[in-house]
Amino acid sequence: MKKAIVLFSGGQDSTTCLFWALKHFDEVIAISFDYGQRHSVELKQAKKITQILEIEHHILSAPALNEIGKTALTDNQEIKNSEKTQLPNTFVPGRNLIFLSLAAGWGYLNDVFNIVTGVCQTDYSGYPDCRYTFIQSAEMTLQLALDQPKIKIHTPLMFLNKAQIWKVSQDLGALDFIIENTHTCYKGERSQKHVWGYGCGTCPACELRKKGFEEAFGYL
Amino acid sequence: MKKAIVLFSGGQDSTTCLFWALKHFDEVIAISFDYGQRHSVELKQAKKITQILEIEHHILSAPALNEIGKTALTDNQEIKNSEKTQLPNTFVPGRNLIFLSLAAGWGYLNDVFNIVTGVCQTDYSGYPDCRYTFIQSAEMTLQLALDQPKIKIHTPLMFLNKAQIWKVSQDLGALDFIIENTHTCYKGERSQKHVWGYGCGTCPACELRKKGFEEAFGYL
Repeated sequence: MKKAIVLFSGGQDSTTCLFWALKHFDEVIAISFDYGQRHSVELKQAKKITQILEIEHHILSAPALNEIGKTALTDNQEIKNSEKTQLPNTFVPGRNLIFLSLAAGWGYLNDVFNIVTGVCQTDYSGYPDCRYTFIQSAEMTLQLALDQPKIKIHTPLMFLNKAQIWKVSQDLGALDFIIENTHTCYKGERSQKHVWGYGCGTCPACELRKKGFEEAFGYL
Repeated sequence: MKKAIVLFSGGQDSTTCLFWALKHFDEVIAISFDYGQRHSVELKQAKKITQILEIEHHILSAPALNEIGKTALTDNQEIKNSEKTQLPNTFVPGRNLIFLSLAAGWGYLNDVFNIVTGVCQTDYSGYPDCRYTFIQSAEMTLQLALDQPKIKIHTPLMFLNKAQIWKVSQDLGALDFIIENTHTCYKGERSQKHVWGYGCGTCPACELRKKGFEEAFGYL
């Protein structure tokens, strides 16, 4: 019985990972995080998706990610590059390591040592905690933190661009499902329907989704 | 201006670290974590101590540590070794990595890259995330997660036993303060006063504190 946890935001990448995990593991558990993100519509989509797919789903609360400081993901700032760090101000520092740690902790107590995350170095917007070197280091640190060498972080999308991720979802037979059910937009917009899904169509996350779709399937 | 964050529980070890940091840095910020621990009396002591010492203090909320599973630190179980893991059932998996990640995230947004923690390999009760190898790995992982090579984790107590930690607090002129103000007891007991401080006197944490005091100062 091979089991895996998928870090699941309800967005395009993590839903693609969910389908990938369903193909490669016997049992899949989705874990989402509530940290006061302003695109909390994601969590509703995450719940809806796991209900449709009949997957065990847990939402863990990490308000500390909001408390440590104001970023555009948890606040009402305009989304732009930070002058100080040159990173998009959507960067919540430490976020992926905290997500991975909580998932590994849950897995430790439930005998699940495979963790799947949709982080992606290719379109990583400069987020350092989406890089492969970070993931390798985090895997070793988690093995040491829990004294559990079986812990393995899987990153099926690591070296793909958005167009390739769309193609993967098509190969997995999940394209229509992902267009219809996944949420990407940083602004939480879901009233506007496009051929690539729902969203404001102009925030960096929508731009990336739209551009990838266009590259993958050549029309828009 | 050298600044440091101290991971601060209000217990003996982290208060010793606080005095150590006050000696070695120009500015010290204490960060505590509220995760539904049943010895939440610690947080009251933490607040009291930072008020007496006039130190900036933040409490971050991480209820996810409680949500991921039931351990004796967050539940009403009897404290004993887990049959499954051979670790004390007070082990909250992933806890120290989550604390370090949140502290590093706060520090990233506030230009503080030194993090002091009182973890200790010597009396570590089998907790894997108190070992030096874990700390070294966590430091590199945090540097990669935040793309910030200045991040440094200081562990002044790493290779000391409890008796030596008592001696350090004496050297720092903090012995009476620590006896009077720090909390250790897992059961949250503070009505019983002993020569080494307050506590039930029988839980593993009290036993360790008492034994160390006896070894350091030769009386009880």
